[in-house]
Amino acid sequence: MKTVYSENHHRQHGRGELTDGYLMPVVEKPERAEMILARVKAEGLGEVVAPHDFGREPLAAVHDAGYLDFLENAWDAWEAEHGGERDALPLIWPVRTLRQARPENIDGKIGYYAMDAGTPITAGTWQAATTSAKVSLTAASLVHAGAPSAFALGRPPGHHAAADLLGGYCFLNNAAIAAQWLRDQGVPRVAILDVDYHHGNGTQAIFDDRADVFFASIHADPRQEFPYFLGHADETGSGAGEGHTANFPLPWGTEWPAYAEALDAACRRIEDYGPDVLVVSLGVDTFERDPISRFRLSSGEFPRIGARLAGLKRPTVFVMEGGYAVEEIGVNALGVLAAFEGG
Amino acid sequence: MKTVYSENHHRQHGRGELTDGYLMPVVEKPERAEMILARVKAEGLGEVVAPHDFGREPLAAVHDAGYLDFLENAWDAWEAEHGGERDALPLIWPVRTLRQARPENIDGKIGYYAMDAGTPITAGTWQAATTSAKVSLTAASLVHAGAPSAFALGRPPGHHAAADLLGGYCFLNNAAIAAQWLRDQGVPRVAILDVDYHHGNGTQAIFDDRADVFFASIHADPRQEFPYFLGHADETGSGAGEGHTANFPLPWGTEWPAYAEALDAACRRIEDYGPDVLVVSLGVDTFERDPISRFRLSSGEFPRIGARLAGLKRPTVFVMEGGYAVEEIGVNALGVLAAFEGG
Ligand SMILES: [Zn+2]
Ligand SMILES: [Zn+2]
Repeated sequence: MKTVYSENHHRQHGRGELTDGYLMPVVEKPERAEMILARVKAEGLGEVVAPHDFGREPLAAVHDAGYLDFLENAWDAWEAEHGGERDALPLIWPVRTLRQARPENIDGKIGYYAMDAGTPITAGTWQAATTSAKVSLTAASLVHAGAPSAFALGRPPGHHAAADLLGGYCFLNNAAIAAQWLRDQGVPRVAILDVDYHHGNGTQAIFDDRADVFFASIHADPRQEFPYFLGHADETGSGAGEGHTANFPLPWGTEWPAYAEALDAACRRIEDYGPDVLVVSLGVDTFERDPISRFRLSSGEFPRIGARLAGLKRPTVFVMEGGYAVEEIGVNALGVLAAFEGG
Repeated sequence: MKTVYSENHHRQHGRGELTDGYLMPVVEKPERAEMILARVKAEGLGEVVAPHDFGREPLAAVHDAGYLDFLENAWDAWEAEHGGERDALPLIWPVRTLRQARPENIDGKIGYYAMDAGTPITAGTWQAATTSAKVSLTAASLVHAGAPSAFALGRPPGHHAAADLLGGYCFLNNAAIAAQWLRDQGVPRVAILDVDYHHGNGTQAIFDDRADVFFASIHADPRQEFPYFLGHADETGSGAGEGHTANFPLPWGTEWPAYAEALDAACRRIEDYGPDVLVVSLGVDTFERDPISRFRLSSGEFPRIGARLAGLKRPTVFVMEGGYAVEEIGVNALGVLAAFEGG
């Protein structure tokens, strides 16, 4: 399969994320994509191609217009107020008892549009995030044009970003943007399977009330793990989307047998839905040595994920999400992709 | 008037707050109360007395039981997970699209119960916060017993804390706890006037739907200033409390003439309400050299606040809130209190 890649991801290189009570160096860093690209080339997965431009419309089909304007201008507003020495981070969030009122001041605006304190906006965030979305759209367009699969090797990732919320290192929801673009090209049914360690809260929220995009996610139980406030088993979609969301939360320490069972259950739900195209939010932070995660999949088990996905026999767009064990991220991602190709 | 004070406030001494994109040394620090106490003694405001214990009931009359349990145990849970080297801070907040589901894990719980990243929980937070509430209750009890006024010199402050939310350096809402205790003693009508630079979002939320406690606040416009998401002029209370909240947001750079006008308008609303007791959330971060605020009141103008409050001729409980220009905090707070006594 082809890999879509652009060097622009380097423009997102945040300095600190609030974790464990301090501003830790951001684990979502450029080396991640470099290591995967090196492995794509080493294994000869296929041609590496540059993304095309799709304009603003496919972003606006998923994200709030005010949110996009904010993202595009946030760094300049931050720099004017605070200088450029530190990344832009929020300090307060509009939680319960507070109004969803959008402040005029940049510090207030960042809080309004954020769900966490771990997703710094930098000078290059808009360029990197929009490029990552283009990477995803280009991969979707390859599959729409007839390729059996394509790999969107972009960063920053996307699955935590909702229609008007950034968080979890995500700004634009690349998987959702690809799925929506496919729908807008006339593809009747799209399914998104999220195998990242963390629940894809943004993707779920975007398609929560819709029947034309099915969302399934296998992830660490939100009662124990980030993003904490979405991804429970009882969330099954709302309104017209009732029954079109399926969550498979698993406990800390989950190993392959329990993971495989959840993966199989999720795949059976997708088979029942019968999508025309499958979008896979591919995170490999389920790896046993991932520095911020607590599942226990070995490198030898990632190909088994790829083989199971191949069994779905659907045109498939892989969109890169998380994975923070930089040394092994390439091996693990390619484990899935190569096995899918061979499956 | 008597001042209620306890050394226990030293137990709250946070190390860092997320402001301007970095963990800045916390401006809400023990020296604040020390400087005010020194000035109380220097000016001979009156006797300094220790707080009494009122048990948990007056706290539970305002705050959620689960929130109180969390606050009491948060540090131990944090220390067990992360060690004691760093203060406990949240990393994600349950904003829109996310569920109000309370996680089991301490990092998730802190996010569930917080509204900002500037209010560190430390080893001594519970002791300091409950003592600050006792200080406030003791001052209320002095007034209830017939004193024309009393001064609760406690910290941490309280007015940003809602029924189940910490934030803005606040954990327990000392002013709300005093007001509710007075109500529970049979005092028919209580008014709270909040003159801190920042909107008292917690106090407003606690009494939003009630007619028995009137809330008025003069503060920096939330469109420009923390807490950003409450304190607009169109918030007037809800349900039975409709018409019993009055907000007077003022722009950055406000000087005495415009401030005096808003103060007079707020006092006229309180006169119309006719409270049996007045609780004043006394912040002096309206001061022109306050390091985190942008009003322009001079030290010579704080006595004019005290004089206007004296004109209300109500039994009055002063509860200390903000003020971060440590060198002048005593002069400014005593400016209000001494003028009130003399007015
Ligand atoms: Zn992840
Ligand atoms: Zn204040």
